[in-house]
Amino acid sequence: MLIAVDAAGGDYAPREVVKGAIEAVKDYPIDIALVGNKAVLEMLLRRAARKSKITIVPASQVVMDGEEPIQAVQNKPDSSVVVGVNLMRDGTADGFVSIGSTGATVVASFLNLNIVQGLERLAICAVFDANQPQPTFLIDAGVSVNCRPIFLVQFAQLANILAQRVFGISSPRIGLLNNGTEESKGNTLVRETYQLLKKTDLNFIGNVEGYDVLKGKADVIVMDGFTGNILVKTIEGYSEVVQNLLELQEASKLDQQLTGTALARYVQMTSVIKKLDYKEYGGACLLGVNGNVVIGHGRSRARAIKSAIYLAYLAARQGVVEAIKNARYATE
Amino acid sequence: MLIAVDAAGGDYAPREVVKGAIEAVKDYPIDIALVGNKAVLEMLLRRAARKSKITIVPASQVVMDGEEPIQAVQNKPDSSVVVGVNLMRDGTADGFVSIGSTGATVVASFLNLNIVQGLERLAICAVFDANQPQPTFLIDAGVSVNCRPIFLVQFAQLANILAQRVFGISSPRIGLLNNGTEESKGNTLVRETYQLLKKTDLNFIGNVEGYDVLKGKADVIVMDGFTGNILVKTIEGYSEVVQNLLELQEASKLDQQLTGTALARYVQMTSVIKKLDYKEYGGACLLGVNGNVVIGHGRSRARAIKSAIYLAYLAARQGVVEAIKNARYATE
Repeated sequence: MLIAVDAAGGDYAPREVVKGAIEAVKDYPIDIALVGNKAVLEMLLRRAARKSKITIVPASQVVMDGEEPIQAVQNKPDSSVVVGVNLMRDGTADGFVSIGSTGATVVASFLNLNIVQGLERLAICAVFDANQPQPTFLIDAGVSVNCRPIFLVQFAQLANILAQRVFGISSPRIGLLNNGTEESKGNTLVRETYQLLKKTDLNFIGNVEGYDVLKGKADVIVMDGFTGNILVKTIEGYSEVVQNLLELQEASKLDQQLTGTALARYVQMTSVIKKLDYKEYGGACLLGVNGNVVIGHGRSRARAIKSAIYLAYLAARQGVVEAIKNARYATE
Repeated sequence: MLIAVDAAGGDYAPREVVKGAIEAVKDYPIDIALVGNKAVLEMLLRRAARKSKITIVPASQVVMDGEEPIQAVQNKPDSSVVVGVNLMRDGTADGFVSIGSTGATVVASFLNLNIVQGLERLAICAVFDANQPQPTFLIDAGVSVNCRPIFLVQFAQLANILAQRVFGISSPRIGLLNNGTEESKGNTLVRETYQLLKKTDLNFIGNVEGYDVLKGKADVIVMDGFTGNILVKTIEGYSEVVQNLLELQEASKLDQQLTGTALARYVQMTSVIKKLDYKEYGGACLLGVNGNVVIGHGRSRARAIKSAIYLAYLAARQGVVEAIKNARYATE
């Protein structure tokens, strides 16, 4: 199995991407194609163990932060994002991990992989590990900012497939993000979506509130991409505030003072807070295209990049894209 | 100055409400009218210091959690919420603090105090103290879930008055919550609002993202009430997760092990995290009615109730409602 990875993407490219890839081929039964500047990548890989499992696919261009995605994708056909997406379109790669340039990845995927038949829109499904027995899936975390009710129903169907296939949740509990739990609550979009979700064969458990996002009340939480973007970034911003506070503690000195149970719990606490941080945890799946695309956070370091690669590997191994192609979607 | 307080509202009524009121009259130059069950309140006040500054206004009914607000307000004319609102309508009180029953408070205020002329909708302005030099104002935190652009512009104008009057911020930086910073970002509502905000004389600084909510990038952050409800509840849920983790530490034992700088910083950290918690911090202002109404969190204890009373006192002292009545609002 071959996973393509955009080695030019993200704030710490290419060094941390290469590190993450080296770690990934050590632990998972995959080969990796690093897409980017050939000379630089060769240098970085010179002393790597298991080099034979990593190949380099040259790409001479890079989509920069702040570039308008559609123009960037059209003007830079040899950018790492476009080359990576095309490796999957051609059947060369079984998955593509893009780091950072969400807009360009969505556009390149939409243009070159096409949307799955029967679907109205694409969505990003963010996978949150909130210290629950199983992760929580937030969809749409930021692609489709203007939604109709049917889009949200289809998002629920997409995330349902992901949760079943990749995470083995047999009947994922689907919650609708709302401003209250009662059926009568919500703006027009959400109230209409509620009525549609009731009619599906999904395990729809009703409305969930902002409180519930990190508490494992639902496996899949459905929302429009505008709300999802705000939600995910708010959690991330909060995580940064809390992590800065923890760093203020000068953790190592604090560790030295602690012993026994208190130390163990301090370590547990910091690890949970880190897990709440999207950029620490890894990737989100772009669902709805004919291809396996995982988007990592722009500030990912090696560990998060390795997680994103793992997610792409799991999705490929479990045939997520095939399942998505074969599913029947709700219609208006 | 007289502040009316709903002594029957919230999870810890009436005991914590009475405690909060006793603390408030000790520290602020106000009298308080506690609205609720006369016999119970008399008993709770029996040994209070400065009893003379607290009066009891009997109310025989209570709006319960989960009651449909419009029906509750209509069917319970002697409920503590309705009696409290009417104390302000009659000019008896200078402010009313309601704890918990947000829906009923909004409905009773709308029906009995009326909306200020020129305004399209009411909004809740939540005041967040995110460890910044000055607080951040989120509006609308949950009243108007279906919005048109003009509503959001008016919300910005309302919060601008509050930030200037009560918190002395001379030219509040107004940010529009969006899924990106570029002017072109956003759903239809937000993109149209952006264009309208540019034309006002507000200090509009453009879009802010979820990351920025807790970081003091803007003084006022404007959003529709659906998004605001999700946002505030997500932050609250996250705070609970983090606080549970801190409690897991068995803080006192951890404190005992720590000394010097590490201890000081641990204490600082827990205090900051507590301040991020809406229910710890206190009240939110219901803006747009002809009256000074502060809504406290249903899970408020004495300290948060005291904060909510303080907010109502400040708003009254600074003439917020008069300023809101005298302002000119954007029109379509």
